[in-house]
Amino acid sequence: MAVDRKILIPALHNIATRLRIDSVRSTTRAGSGHPSSCCSAADVVAALFFAQMRFDPKDPRRADNDRFVLSKGHAAPLLYSVWAEAGAFDRAQLLTLREISSDLEGHPTPRLPFVDVATGSLGQGICVAVGLALNARRIGSDYRTYVMIGDGESAEGSVWEAADVASHHGLDNLCGITDVNALGQSQPTQWQHNMDQFARRWEAFGWEPIVVDGHDMAAVLDGFARARQTKGRPAMVLARTIKGKGISFVEGKNGWHGRPLKKGEEEDRAIKELESQFVQLPSPFDAPSLIAKPAGPPPDAKTAQPQIAAPEYKLGDAVATREAYGTALVRLGQADERVLALDGDVGNSTYSEKFGKAFPGRFYETYIAEQAMVGVAMGLASQGAIPFPSTFACFLTRAADFIRMACISDLDVKLCGSHAGISIGEDGPSQMGLEDLAAMRAQPNMTVVYPCDAVSTERLVEAIAYRRGPAYIRTTRPKTPVIYPPGETFEIGGAKVLRQDAHDVVTVVAAGITVYEALKAYGELKGAGIALRVIDAYSVQPIDARTLRDAARATGGRVITVEDHYAGGGLGDAVAGALAEDGYVVRRLAVREIPRSGKPEELLDRYGISARHIVAAVKAMATSGVSVDPQKRY
Amino acid sequence: MAVDRKILIPALHNIATRLRIDSVRSTTRAGSGHPSSCCSAADVVAALFFAQMRFDPKDPRRADNDRFVLSKGHAAPLLYSVWAEAGAFDRAQLLTLREISSDLEGHPTPRLPFVDVATGSLGQGICVAVGLALNARRIGSDYRTYVMIGDGESAEGSVWEAADVASHHGLDNLCGITDVNALGQSQPTQWQHNMDQFARRWEAFGWEPIVVDGHDMAAVLDGFARARQTKGRPAMVLARTIKGKGISFVEGKNGWHGRPLKKGEEEDRAIKELESQFVQLPSPFDAPSLIAKPAGPPPDAKTAQPQIAAPEYKLGDAVATREAYGTALVRLGQADERVLALDGDVGNSTYSEKFGKAFPGRFYETYIAEQAMVGVAMGLASQGAIPFPSTFACFLTRAADFIRMACISDLDVKLCGSHAGISIGEDGPSQMGLEDLAAMRAQPNMTVVYPCDAVSTERLVEAIAYRRGPAYIRTTRPKTPVIYPPGETFEIGGAKVLRQDAHDVVTVVAAGITVYEALKAYGELKGAGIALRVIDAYSVQPIDARTLRDAARATGGRVITVEDHYAGGGLGDAVAGALAEDGYVVRRLAVREIPRSGKPEELLDRYGISARHIVAAVKAMATSGVSVDPQKRY
Repeated sequence: MAVDRKILIPALHNIATRLRIDSVRSTTRAGSGHPSSCCSAADVVAALFFAQMRFDPKDPRRADNDRFVLSKGHAAPLLYSVWAEAGAFDRAQLLTLREISSDLEGHPTPRLPFVDVATGSLGQGICVAVGLALNARRIGSDYRTYVMIGDGESAEGSVWEAADVASHHGLDNLCGITDVNALGQSQPTQWQHNMDQFARRWEAFGWEPIVVDGHDMAAVLDGFARARQTKGRPAMVLARTIKGKGISFVEGKNGWHGRPLKKGEEEDRAIKELESQFVQLPSPFDAPSLIAKPAGPPPDAKTAQPQIAAPEYKLGDAVATREAYGTALVRLGQADERVLALDGDVGNSTYSEKFGKAFPGRFYETYIAEQAMVGVAMGLASQGAIPFPSTFACFLTRAADFIRMACISDLDVKLCGSHAGISIGEDGPSQMGLEDLAAMRAQPNMTVVYPCDAVSTERLVEAIAYRRGPAYIRTTRPKTPVIYPPGETFEIGGAKVLRQDAHDVVTVVAAGITVYEALKAYGELKGAGIALRVIDAYSVQPIDARTLRDAARATGGRVITVEDHYAGGGLGDAVAGALAEDGYVVRRLAVREIPRSGKPEELLDRYGISARHIVAAVKAMATSGVSVDPQKRY
Repeated sequence: MAVDRKILIPALHNIATRLRIDSVRSTTRAGSGHPSSCCSAADVVAALFFAQMRFDPKDPRRADNDRFVLSKGHAAPLLYSVWAEAGAFDRAQLLTLREISSDLEGHPTPRLPFVDVATGSLGQGICVAVGLALNARRIGSDYRTYVMIGDGESAEGSVWEAADVASHHGLDNLCGITDVNALGQSQPTQWQHNMDQFARRWEAFGWEPIVVDGHDMAAVLDGFARARQTKGRPAMVLARTIKGKGISFVEGKNGWHGRPLKKGEEEDRAIKELESQFVQLPSPFDAPSLIAKPAGPPPDAKTAQPQIAAPEYKLGDAVATREAYGTALVRLGQADERVLALDGDVGNSTYSEKFGKAFPGRFYETYIAEQAMVGVAMGLASQGAIPFPSTFACFLTRAADFIRMACISDLDVKLCGSHAGISIGEDGPSQMGLEDLAAMRAQPNMTVVYPCDAVSTERLVEAIAYRRGPAYIRTTRPKTPVIYPPGETFEIGGAKVLRQDAHDVVTVVAAGITVYEALKAYGELKGAGIALRVIDAYSVQPIDARTLRDAARATGGRVITVEDHYAGGGLGDAVAGALAEDGYVVRRLAVREIPRSGKPEELLDRYGISARHIVAAVKAMATSGVSVDPQKRY
């Protein structure tokens, strides 16, 4: 930034031209990709990396680097080109774009050290950027966060959730850029080059809107300067650009989205045109030398896992697991300042408000905006925090796409969904999480736990906090008695055999609220002389296949699962899946239709997951006279 | 509306007071619910129903009634009270609120004839209302649509998606109401009573913002009149209200969200206060007599299922199922004008653009706003249309909560997710739908089909169109050869046995792209003298348990599933679930980690679902020497 503008501007122009050339070459070589979306943004990105951001290109994960999030992830070749230009890696690697052996994937993922969070699902990167900007405050750094979105992307509601959260927090360390290239994937965008449509929206949402010509380097620099001077609120640089800029036969033409130039004449012509756009510089320069580096040593990161004392519950205490979650979070937060909580205005229901009261500075309220809540958590997690976003289990589905991307990024986002299942009662189906286990289990790297009492809740909150990667804890609305002593330990991937006997005829696998139904069934059947093995499968993913298999074998290959969840994709599928290669018989009790309002116990019974139904299923199975030979295993 | 304001206003005031009393009484009786959220909105709702809307309270489903959507569904007791007041049912029933035997559930569902779409997940009702307003144009009616949202609800991004779609379509038959009561669930809302924060946002998004005192009946009526006069764009009445209005010890106080008044002294005091607010009227009046009814007979609804000619493909034609979907949609649209398509700016990838070109008036472009796309479809479906919203399978997760509510409402929303699985190749994991089958299967009333070729795609598009309730069709990016003759029929709940022989040793169950891998494996193994049974499980839900069971039994109880989807909740779980009570052995090939970019065939092989892996799995199973006795069934 100390460089004279007369030298800087032509230098940036030449860098931008190189970024265009690299984007064209790499996508043509790959045979797919989005060069036209790279060309529109190249000038702005060149200005950002070489005249605005302060970062160490050789240490992209450095905690006090300025951050850049490419929310319009399909312009990945531009991102890769600019990092190569900055010296992060050898430009020759750009030609491995989209190859199976290359980390330069079709859309950016954190396999690359300079990508904090995967993008490619529009409207997410800006939520992540809000998290990155909040993280600067958390670690006491003055780094700035930049995020580039597309104009078409602005139709995503999550963009406006992020806009509100950012302005609510007065994030003047956050600068957005909208690449207004006026063309979407299939047609012109809704507002095309009507810059006022963008400006008035951002202004209404409390941002400083800054409209610039995105190909006029001086205007772009002025825009960024104005953004930097904006205090008390975030700034949005609205860059009017031309899709395909620099290539005459692509510029501003529909039909070029996601289409590389054909190898041969088409590519050659484009490269030739672009090369002719290099300008003569007064003196030679080295692009990386333009980059401002952070001063001093990088901030320390605290990474040790603290010891936390045992829970303070007594056997028989009646405590809802959702309340135990709040208590657990506070205890964890006392021991580790990386632990954060996020809320979507239901903190008094999920009990995350306990954490908010204990640690107001580490509690992020996004109001009723679940996508932003999870997106902000993704940004924070990417920087070493351990965020716990929580809401009703059913409302986490609002953020399902964010959770998907958090998994692709393998982030330490620790989700809590409360009010699981029909056991919430009278509020009715819209408030019941009945598909959450299916959604979470589908993600291969998601840890899924479902405690039944306060002790297991507290221990599992700790366990997921320190297990690498995304995790989900499911909590229950009604109070349940504590069944585990405070000293009990809970491994991820484990299960607890609660009742067993040499003469058990059936294994009943339950989790959460149904553990109590299974125990009730056990009591009733005991009176009838039928012995049950009862398992608390608190770790739904990974599931304890060995304990299940041992129990199934010991009970004549007969297994019953019972869950407060729909039949598809939940505990039953998890158990049946774990035993699928063993040839055992698994009967699954689950909710099999859209439920309605009613009292919890009425609903458990009506939808077939109460003790009465377990008893009936056990009797039918145990007296059938046909048993599967557990030795006959594949 | 012909009534003199001097009579009308006190009459409306008394009605509003009755609605408050009924809301208090019913929630106290139920022991749960949200009376304070009802009290803030009672005046506006009374004005709407008895001085604005034109509808027949005895025929709430009448196609040309004005519609009212209570997007803030937790104020359900107010909704029920106003319909009782209008004469739709007996007021005495209000006291059954939230009972298991009552359709007056905790949040509104279409079990009630005056509820078009279930609400209770905030930010959805306004998207639905956009669909209802578009429906008026579709059927050529001048009915108006009203939707009430909460102020806290305005933080949901989906609200702003709806705002854009409505202003883009210039929906001046749509009138929103924001009940700005300044208190959220756990705390004051973000903007409290700063009405300008709301007005500037709605204005920026192209709506006419109309700020009124929501307890000043004359101002409310003037506001609605101004909304009615607004042409070319929708109007938003921003009603400044007091939460708990009318009950002195609840009014404007935090801590009263979702909390009924206690039976006894607390309730009695509230009722007494409210009753004292009745005013003397110049003459007695009957509330229902105030309601304006639609003139003339109700519009006809076309309901017959047309005959559609067989597909026009030849065996061996190479056609991507996504392209066949577009073609099928056009053919269906030619035969039935209720068929609609909705797009989120990917119509050239999903091929829904074919429909858009053929029927521009029945093609709804929501731009990149998947929540609005599905929400609008929900509104249209609730009025007898058959809408097909489509986008990439992975981006339907953006609308997961809307899909959940569409299922609770059992609406005829026919979703299409394209670009399923790793077979999309180079674009990478962010663009791959790998959890969609799990998410869709979790919903108990969702039909899920997954065709492998153009003929089955075309037939399954027709089949889901005319099957009651929500449905999902999964399509594939690469071209696949046509394997079915044009005359082939495809029942929902069926499966096709593609290869069979008396000596088959293993059953391989595939769907979509993996059908071709299974057929390749069949060919290879045939050469090695190993016979396979190959099943195309095109109907994933309901799945053809009988065909699967018969095949498993015929092949020594050995089953292999192979799917381009994560292992949790997909085809493998569906098959294992269908066979879980039989004691067969199911080995499941699926994607078990976060994938990366690469060529489709490279990825199929790397992630274990190619012909090579099927061959290996078959050989391991077939030569194991241990077979499960298929007769030993529970």
